[in-house]
Amino acid sequence: MASAETRLQELGITLPTAPKPVAKYKPAVLIGNVLYVSGHGPAKIGDPKLQAGKLGGSLTLEQGKECAKLVGINILATVKATLGSLDKVKRLIKTLGMVNGVPDFRDHPQVINGFSEFMAQVFGDDAGVGARSAVGMGSLPNDIPVEIECIFEVG
Amino acid sequence: MASAETRLQELGITLPTAPKPVAKYKPAVLIGNVLYVSGHGPAKIGDPKLQAGKLGGSLTLEQGKECAKLVGINILATVKATLGSLDKVKRLIKTLGMVNGVPDFRDHPQVINGFSEFMAQVFGDDAGVGARSAVGMGSLPNDIPVEIECIFEVG
Amino acid sequence: MASAETRLQELGITLPTAPKPVAKYKPAVLIGNVLYVSGHGPAKIGDPKLQAGKLGGSLTLEQGKECAKLVGINILATVKATLGSLDKVKRLIKTLGMVNGVPDFRDHPQVINGFSEFMAQVFGDDAGVGARSAVGMGSLPNDIPVEIECIFEVG
Repeated sequence: MASAETRLQELGITLPTAPKPVAKYKPAVLIGNVLYVSGHGPAKIGDPKLQAGKLGGSLTLEQGKECAKLVGINILATVKATLGSLDKVKRLIKTLGMVNGVPDFRDHPQVINGFSEFMAQVFGDDAGVGARSAVGMGSLPNDIPVEIECIFEVG
Repeated sequence: MASAETRLQELGITLPTAPKPVAKYKPAVLIGNVLYVSGHGPAKIGDPKLQAGKLGGSLTLEQGKECAKLVGINILATVKATLGSLDKVKRLIKTLGMVNGVPDFRDHPQVINGFSEFMAQVFGDDAGVGARSAVGMGSLPNDIPVEIECIFEVG
Repeated sequence: MASAETRLQELGITLPTAPKPVAKYKPAVLIGNVLYVSGHGPAKIGDPKLQAGKLGGSLTLEQGKECAKLVGINILATVKATLGSLDKVKRLIKTLGMVNGVPDFRDHPQVINGFSEFMAQVFGDDAGVGARSAVGMGSLPNDIPVEIECIFEVG
């Protein structure tokens, strides 16, 4: 199986500069072999519409899913900046996928799949698929549609 | 003290088939001696009213508490399917109890106690009681009243 | 660098009695060298207005930030009661900062900074700054403005 760095290249994705913290926190903290990644919003690339709005409100399911993938790209940028290479990731352990939805929004799993399917593409269908919750928040910073935090095992 | 499997029998509870993931995730992931369990909804047994609705809206506190117990039953089904036996659990470490409540709902701890009291019955008053947050979400998948993720230490 | 206990003294802060669990959970659980701290609300000291209300509703950003600091004081009381001394903390690993905000609230990071800046004052700018998510809940127990759970590494 190709390495995560090779797969990312094959997908034609160039990681942006890792996002700088907007407040008093670190983008990620490594304790032993567990990397705790802070909540990330979407990378500021592609369609500007994906940067703000609520699912079930101004954003469609497909837009939410695409936004979740942009969050994944941002998270990989942080992982690479922290570890030096994505190839040091052994597996995705757990994801908390937080959707900015209206009160009757029901399709959080499909939205967060935009992140989870991307992780599976990069790290493979075993190592790239972890435990997960996909849930709806009352609000998110700057009204971003999706925020995700996750934990990786480092090899 | 009786084993967790024995206690479950004494409570007269037969675990359902472990729920299959509805999206791109694993029900649980074991890293070292820590088992990360995905967010689970209520087991599809008992009163169908407990499968959807908001606390402080269509559901009473008692119904929410019963729903949280059904989530516990579902989680134990996943734990048993993953580890082979509940007796491999050393302790409950942490629970994130997520309640689908209306904006002025205030009684999340009592709702999530439906889960926590059940865990204490099965694993005992020390090993079955962990750290916890019980909070209110803006929305949940398919409008389930309660979703819970948790972490166990495995012996 | 001064110890955490010394720094707390220098800040003129006397920790209150650690809060007792209001339901079926433990305030904190230590597994190996990782301390999992339950979701805490604000310490019951200072302005009573900081004990309930929504950000973007009855509470200003400054009040929310002060409330998040009161949550930090409560959490340190639990950490000290659990470990015996704050000086056993090696670092803050991760924080989940949960803000009780109205649906269009956008400033969660600034609110949770009230907690994070306090942790940095007590444990220092490296060890006291961890990974973090700062997000908006639909509701919180007893309508508290902020609830925070976190994980510490113990030395």
